[in-house]
Amino acid sequence: MAGLFTRLRAGAGAAWEEYVRHPFVEALADGSLRREAFQEFLVQDYLFLIQYARAHALLAYKLEDLADIRAALDTAKALIEIEIPLHVKYCAGWGLAEARMREAPPALEMLAYTRYVLEQGLAGDALDLLAALAPCLAGYAEIGLWAARRAQPDNPYIDWIRTYTGEDYLASVEAALAMIDRVGDALGAEARLPRLQAVFTQATRLEAAFWRTGWREQAP
Amino acid sequence: MAGLFTRLRAGAGAAWEEYVRHPFVEALADGSLRREAFQEFLVQDYLFLIQYARAHALLAYKLEDLADIRAALDTAKALIEIEIPLHVKYCAGWGLAEARMREAPPALEMLAYTRYVLEQGLAGDALDLLAALAPCLAGYAEIGLWAARRAQPDNPYIDWIRTYTGEDYLASVEAALAMIDRVGDALGAEARLPRLQAVFTQATRLEAAFWRTGWREQAP
Amino acid sequence: MAGLFTRLRAGAGAAWEEYVRHPFVEALADGSLRREAFQEFLVQDYLFLIQYARAHALLAYKLEDLADIRAALDTAKALIEIEIPLHVKYCAGWGLAEARMREAPPALEMLAYTRYVLEQGLAGDALDLLAALAPCLAGYAEIGLWAARRAQPDNPYIDWIRTYTGEDYLASVEAALAMIDRVGDALGAEARLPRLQAVFTQATRLEAAFWRTGWREQAP
Amino acid sequence: MAGLFTRLRAGAGAAWEEYVRHPFVEALADGSLRREAFQEFLVQDYLFLIQYARAHALLAYKLEDLADIRAALDTAKALIEIEIPLHVKYCAGWGLAEARMREAPPALEMLAYTRYVLEQGLAGDALDLLAALAPCLAGYAEIGLWAARRAQPDNPYIDWIRTYTGEDYLASVEAALAMIDRVGDALGAEARLPRLQAVFTQATRLEAAFWRTGWREQAP
Repeated sequence: MAGLFTRLRAGAGAAWEEYVRHPFVEALADGSLRREAFQEFLVQDYLFLIQYARAHALLAYKLEDLADIRAALDTAKALIEIEIPLHVKYCAGWGLAEARMREAPPALEMLAYTRYVLEQGLAGDALDLLAALAPCLAGYAEIGLWAARRAQPDNPYIDWIRTYTGEDYLASVEAALAMIDRVGDALGAEARLPRLQAVFTQATRLEAAFWRTGWREQAP
Repeated sequence: MAGLFTRLRAGAGAAWEEYVRHPFVEALADGSLRREAFQEFLVQDYLFLIQYARAHALLAYKLEDLADIRAALDTAKALIEIEIPLHVKYCAGWGLAEARMREAPPALEMLAYTRYVLEQGLAGDALDLLAALAPCLAGYAEIGLWAARRAQPDNPYIDWIRTYTGEDYLASVEAALAMIDRVGDALGAEARLPRLQAVFTQATRLEAAFWRTGWREQAP
Repeated sequence: MAGLFTRLRAGAGAAWEEYVRHPFVEALADGSLRREAFQEFLVQDYLFLIQYARAHALLAYKLEDLADIRAALDTAKALIEIEIPLHVKYCAGWGLAEARMREAPPALEMLAYTRYVLEQGLAGDALDLLAALAPCLAGYAEIGLWAARRAQPDNPYIDWIRTYTGEDYLASVEAALAMIDRVGDALGAEARLPRLQAVFTQATRLEAAFWRTGWREQAP
Repeated sequence: MAGLFTRLRAGAGAAWEEYVRHPFVEALADGSLRREAFQEFLVQDYLFLIQYARAHALLAYKLEDLADIRAALDTAKALIEIEIPLHVKYCAGWGLAEARMREAPPALEMLAYTRYVLEQGLAGDALDLLAALAPCLAGYAEIGLWAARRAQPDNPYIDWIRTYTGEDYLASVEAALAMIDRVGDALGAEARLPRLQAVFTQATRLEAAFWRTGWREQAP
């Protein structure tokens, strides 16, 4: 039987396509994205990553199996120690200083998405939180692989795209999807599917909306 | 098919009997319980009721259906406005002033039980919290009905026993067990039974341990 | 010394004006608001009220004083039993059935605001939650009183405006602001002001953004 | 001015002495502790460490500053990856297999302490959680240093005692106390002292009670 993520992804229907084939993604892949649009996205993505790390710390608290707790802590720690610094370094190349990103007014889309995920994780259990976290993790791999195939070698966003096609990233996605299946088995995913689907689909819609943080700068 | 509570109660095995037929309960029913033992229990039960009200407020936050939220709020409110004041009035008859109960050092058994339930409810979802809350609510009805049949008319604890055999209390138990079944259906209880059973059985053991708050005064 | 709300309101600066004098509010007061704009707002306000009730249940859990817990439960219960049904009845007069509102896609503004408040309340303590809840409660009284003075007797929104100028509503605001001061004294509000201000100002910005749920229908 | 921990320790009065000079500690230091008593303690300490790791994951979620989040994650990770495995290896030397410890019935003292700390952290903010965590961390350093001075070279518990006198452990305590001061400054510790003291003192009492998990085997 297909894994839980595969079923949730299928169940999200058009919302998934609107997320992974958003005009922002297409413009990234064909290189037509304006520099300002990308920069605005990067700023909010910085703010997002901090909340994403907090969400994985919350996940670690919510889990029961020591190996799962360890995996969630590893993700949170990798976000703080590797991905956020890499993001900061990458942003510096686009003229964005960390101090400016930290002080940037949080976009509505960033607040809606991150707080929805965190609150879902607090009101529900570890499986609800995993369902809310899944679209981001696995969607970016899908987006990265699709965009990498389309992008020309001189695409200005190629380094960003390749972040999500590297072996390390793909291995982390695979590990996370295996955890969802494992926790899903223990916590009755099959019988809770309608609610998990509602959470997954809502998170997918909020991921799609997140692109607007940059897209509204494309043709302002 | 039997309701979720009936299955969890059966699954708790000997732990359930050790709770509902604790020597404290037998001494209550045959009137041999020492006054000091009952008083100590009443003090910790006062502290318990406050946390029990908080647990129902937490439950209201965790629920999604408006009718369920309303029912959880009603229980929390009834605890604060009716049951705690009744308990205070009843305790006054045993020479226990509210101020003394409020300042009483919390017993280990009270802390363990109430914080276990609350933390379970925060780490898990509404169904985990309901599984942790069920032994108290339904167990006291069972204890009350059993003790009422055994108690002589001059049993000094007869009023306390009858608190849990009244129509209002039994109706509230029935409503709560219906909510567990309803939420259980929505959140996949069947497929999560091992974990729900672990929570229910642990809460049952902590209920049994709670009698010690009084029982240790029986033969000090 | 002025109460905590008065200081936070002043500290929010322009954000407060953008909330209480939003073009949507002006159009409500002078009657120029389009029917469709008001309807869209009412739909999201219905979804908001459910989360607002959950937030007060969470507050009740977070509080320690029995009188405060009782007040928070009363607010949650009044929202579920009186305000939401009144809102539903009122919406029916505008051609909005409850079933339609319940199924309506949640607006980004509604999600951002409600989940920000709830998550703030879960990450922080009761005082952080109160700071996040304050702009809504007290702001609507201010908006209601201002709009009521400006509205002509044939203003189609006059009944809605008067909801927030009634004695009951104003008394509930006064009670809530007194609770903020009381909890603030106990939990060191003075020394935590920068953080409380950040929460209050962010919640105020999200309140201002919430008007867009309707305003985008004004001149689509 | 003395750090927050120093003030809370002084404010805990006799409760602190009852914790750090518990008969169990004295018997550890002079080597008179029965093997069975130590083993029972080690079993519950294993269960404790898992919850202690979860508490640090929760702390990471509750914190806001990236350096603080990272430090809390590091502690959680060190517990899972280093301290628990070391504990397991150490216990094996005393004839305790990990499987047996994992299945051991949780003692009331362990449940009361760990769930009190976790629930305090969920109801309150990061500073409340830090106040609940402080007695364990800093108390074990104090106990270790005191016991190490008293223990004879042939003391059978000397390796355990030295765990808490090593440079690494003492550095981690120092870092944790610095974090309490830092978070305390940001979140108004001074003005919230009565409540923080109540949490700290209660946690201290629960630490003292925790020794009973072993002590009741000393003279059964």
